[in-house]
Amino acid sequence: MKKILLIVMDGLGDRGCDDLRGLTPLQFIRNPNMDWFVEHGSAGICDPIAPGIRPGSDTAHLAILGYDVQSIYSGRGPFEAIGAEMDIQPGDIALRCNFAYVSDDMEVLDRRAGRIKAPETTELVDALNDLEIDGVEFIVKESTDHRAALVLRGYGLDERITDVDPQGDNVLKTCEPLCEEAEFTAEVVNKFMVECYNRLKNHPTNRKRMAAGLPPANILVPRGAGSFPYIEPFPYIHGISACCVSGVGMIKGICKACGIDVYPLPESCNGGLDTDFIMKADCALEALEDYDFVLMNCKAPDIAGHDGDAKLKSEVVKRLDAMMGHIRKNMPDDLVIVMTCDHCTPCSLKDHSGDPVPIAIYTKGCLRDEAKEFSESGCCHGFLGRIRGRDIVPICMDLANRTEKYGS
Amino acid sequence: MKKILLIVMDGLGDRGCDDLRGLTPLQFIRNPNMDWFVEHGSAGICDPIAPGIRPGSDTAHLAILGYDVQSIYSGRGPFEAIGAEMDIQPGDIALRCNFAYVSDDMEVLDRRAGRIKAPETTELVDALNDLEIDGVEFIVKESTDHRAALVLRGYGLDERITDVDPQGDNVLKTCEPLCEEAEFTAEVVNKFMVECYNRLKNHPTNRKRMAAGLPPANILVPRGAGSFPYIEPFPYIHGISACCVSGVGMIKGICKACGIDVYPLPESCNGGLDTDFIMKADCALEALEDYDFVLMNCKAPDIAGHDGDAKLKSEVVKRLDAMMGHIRKNMPDDLVIVMTCDHCTPCSLKDHSGDPVPIAIYTKGCLRDEAKEFSESGCCHGFLGRIRGRDIVPICMDLANRTEKYGS
Repeated sequence: MKKILLIVMDGLGDRGCDDLRGLTPLQFIRNPNMDWFVEHGSAGICDPIAPGIRPGSDTAHLAILGYDVQSIYSGRGPFEAIGAEMDIQPGDIALRCNFAYVSDDMEVLDRRAGRIKAPETTELVDALNDLEIDGVEFIVKESTDHRAALVLRGYGLDERITDVDPQGDNVLKTCEPLCEEAEFTAEVVNKFMVECYNRLKNHPTNRKRMAAGLPPANILVPRGAGSFPYIEPFPYIHGISACCVSGVGMIKGICKACGIDVYPLPESCNGGLDTDFIMKADCALEALEDYDFVLMNCKAPDIAGHDGDAKLKSEVVKRLDAMMGHIRKNMPDDLVIVMTCDHCTPCSLKDHSGDPVPIAIYTKGCLRDEAKEFSESGCCHGFLGRIRGRDIVPICMDLANRTEKYGS
Repeated sequence: MKKILLIVMDGLGDRGCDDLRGLTPLQFIRNPNMDWFVEHGSAGICDPIAPGIRPGSDTAHLAILGYDVQSIYSGRGPFEAIGAEMDIQPGDIALRCNFAYVSDDMEVLDRRAGRIKAPETTELVDALNDLEIDGVEFIVKESTDHRAALVLRGYGLDERITDVDPQGDNVLKTCEPLCEEAEFTAEVVNKFMVECYNRLKNHPTNRKRMAAGLPPANILVPRGAGSFPYIEPFPYIHGISACCVSGVGMIKGICKACGIDVYPLPESCNGGLDTDFIMKADCALEALEDYDFVLMNCKAPDIAGHDGDAKLKSEVVKRLDAMMGHIRKNMPDDLVIVMTCDHCTPCSLKDHSGDPVPIAIYTKGCLRDEAKEFSESGCCHGFLGRIRGRDIVPICMDLANRTEKYGS
């Protein structure tokens, strides 16, 4: 039985970039180490979810881990909470929130409260976190910028409620139940809104903001309620131990929700553009001593893609290639190694796209095909053809000699 | 956001043709304009429905428009009616019919009434179209050759009834209900059979036929009952305006059933072998000024395929290539353009086959792969790999920057 290293190069796939003579960063830069894995392994292209579906990092990682995303994904609230690294339990209801600035009449004066962010959001959250209403515990955590997640924990909850967030409109809406079972939930959310405003309006942080001429963040505006889904633990489904090597909160949250351990990383592996890829590779190889399956996420190409900077993304590709050289030199013999992406983040879009991503799978003694280059166009000649994210783990499990025969 | 032009070259795909040294028409003829789109875009092959499934033009177009055909398609009756350009409403029951020649004892003497066709079938249909039985309206329309469609409209109808058509047997069958709910429907169909025979047997058209020694068409023989399905409108699903540019009744009917507008065409765009492709291309480009999505169907290659005439089909290919040259010169910058087929119509078969069809997708800034030629074998090297008809619209919507992110 072999071990499995699944390397997700976040957002690496691209479309033709004007700055790179119409090529993608992977087509533009020569990558001898990535190409070695393609040349000695099997290549293909992969729809993380399905053709044309534009994935988030959350849904893409769930799919790549083999889950049927559509049966798991119930609104963005729970995944905002996972992304904020909250400890959530099955049965919890989660909502996404904005910190906003409202008048006494609940008229929205600034729906992002001047794009407030940590540490101020952290201070405001502290004022809300001992709240219990009619037996329901309210747990708040700040997230990126002016965002936060709100978790409701208790008996008799139901996620079928309307948003408080008025989106285009001016005045906050009353939370309404969409069915009888959700009446209690809507009621406690409305009580929370009153209590939240009372606690935040004169909070020292807000007083300081007003003194500085900034809009106060005097309320949390929730939307996107979802119940936290039960996710069958990955190690249980596949009968293997598993950990993730990532510096990104959302990815760590997703993995934890799937029962995958989070491997501790040194601070230099920060999930940013300046992350230490060689150190991260060493951590992944180290983790493989203790775990059967390691998911390694490299976030930097996605950041360069969101910046729309094709030259920067090409530099990141060079560093990823060096990382793959380091892995090639130091990897154990009994390893199945996958290079792929969770989605494309084309520089021309500055956002994710629904294009398929390149994939290469290598293990000693695997089938070699005629693909030679780790790129969008280079991998499409390979033996794997066009697969889906959900196919990756079963293919790896089989190459790792860990599958049971289906039939006789 | 970009607009989308989906060009369906009807039945263009083929197998090796003896008359073309074992090549397909696309392999045999040099097509510089079609090839330009392949060279500058992404290519692949596409199973309109699924591998080995031999599609009709109706089911293939539904699939290419993104519908799950199997959940929509409920017997051929409704699609015969759509093909005959009947105005149908949800809840209607539709049946396919033959005009036939029967004796007074309902013995079938000629099940196609000497392959009667329009204008005689039109005259006969006129004699049937004010029929109402027990509150059910019977609407008949002639279709291709000796065929017609019959629509039942009224309360209490149910499509679960047996065929009147005896197929191999000699005597017309009584329509039987397959469940209690369909008893009324079977009863009115049987009453219709009697009335139909009474109205047609001495019809002037039939008297003329008999005088000329031809079998009269003295009855309509229904089979294939289906309820008209509810099809979620295409513009509603995708949030775009859409029209079709086609000279073919069936395609226009399918599009109308999907809530897609039918663009008015000059008479020279007749859906026949001598159609004016350049004019049609101009109409499609004109339509793109008003619509986000244009489906353009070019029927001629299918006709040549059904004729089994590979040389003729090659001539059609040349004219299609000229059309693509015209489109290339005149297309707007912000366009996603797809060239594909709804199915293969191999000249050796003179009918549709279940082979996959070539597809190429081009838009400015898309990914270029190594495929160079628009043909069955040339496109299989492309980045798109092997996709399904249902994938086409999602892929185009994503390339047109019109998709929402699934997740965060």
